[in-house]
Amino acid sequence: MTAKGLATRQRIVIAAALLIREKGAAETTLDDVRAATSTSKSQLFHYFPNGRTDMLVAVAAYEAEQVLDAQQPHLADLTTWRSWQAWSRAVLNHYTELGNRCPLGSLTSELGKSSPEAEAVTVALFETWEAALVRGAETLLKDRNLAITRARSILAAVQGGVILLQVTGQVGYLKDALTSSIEPLRPAAPSQRQASR
Amino acid sequence: MTAKGLATRQRIVIAAALLIREKGAAETTLDDVRAATSTSKSQLFHYFPNGRTDMLVAVAAYEAEQVLDAQQPHLADLTTWRSWQAWSRAVLNHYTELGNRCPLGSLTSELGKSSPEAEAVTVALFETWEAALVRGAETLLKDRNLAITRARSILAAVQGGVILLQVTGQVGYLKDALTSSIEPLRPAAPSQRQASR
Repeated sequence: MTAKGLATRQRIVIAAALLIREKGAAETTLDDVRAATSTSKSQLFHYFPNGRTDMLVAVAAYEAEQVLDAQQPHLADLTTWRSWQAWSRAVLNHYTELGNRCPLGSLTSELGKSSPEAEAVTVALFETWEAALVRGAETLLKDRNLAITRARSILAAVQGGVILLQVTGQVGYLKDALTSSIEPLRPAAPSQRQASR
Repeated sequence: MTAKGLATRQRIVIAAALLIREKGAAETTLDDVRAATSTSKSQLFHYFPNGRTDMLVAVAAYEAEQVLDAQQPHLADLTTWRSWQAWSRAVLNHYTELGNRCPLGSLTSELGKSSPEAEAVTVALFETWEAALVRGAETLLKDRNLAITRARSILAAVQGGVILLQVTGQVGYLKDALTSSIEPLRPAAPSQRQASR
């Protein structure tokens, strides 16, 4: 595919992703995407030979990227308590801004179930995400198994907080879930550390 | 409505709920429900005058009840650490058993968005659920604001753990999320309590 072709394909994927965040995957047809991108049917099938299914896989991959990008640069370096706090603030801001039209919600509610390929994209996202959280937690906790437990509970906290934001419109669940779930990574205050020596 | 009428209506609601857990709300038509319950079109419209929308609201209400019932009797009396542990085990067993065909997943992924009425049912479920968690947490923590924070993070943990179970097929997220989120409610061990006196 030429550079121009890739750019057009990406333009279609982004437009489809925004439509799906807005209306849901079930309600978004190829015709909606054509209308939103001013492309022809033959152009769409040129970029997505198997039609809708192909397009939804491409959108899932794009949304998975968005989920991770929104957490950078913090996610790549969660080696200090300060960076966990910065990460937590970035996550909270990201979802507060997007409300119930977010890439993560799109992926887990419908997009990720649209085909085995889309499901694989979603599972891979959670694996990458979890691995980054485990790496950071392990640096602070010095215990791999405990780090895995904490990372998984942090991942569930974000996920649950986002769903509750979507359902109730309140960001408080995500805020409290983030605060509580990263708390065990906070190093003991110096005075306490000395006291326990 | 007669007792017999109510029973028939309930039979239809339960059958529809199971179909929706299995195939999703978008894929479940009134014809599917008719076929599964051996009812006629006129019978369905007798019980649900506005058709599909009405039926989905009734299914949402039924599923919300199922979500709470699965947590009883523990949810009604979370006043001891022991009862929090029993509750946590019950939740884990319930979702491990149901896997990705659970009432909570049905509600938050599609059902709860099917109409303003269904959304109100879902929001009411989370309010009732949260209130029960807050009551229990407050007994143990003796601090209402902290109890609210903990309750909200526990609610998000369950929600996120269930979504991750649905997406990845692994129950470990829910397990770790439950363990980590209720941990702050565990009373200090007697020895520690004495030491801090």
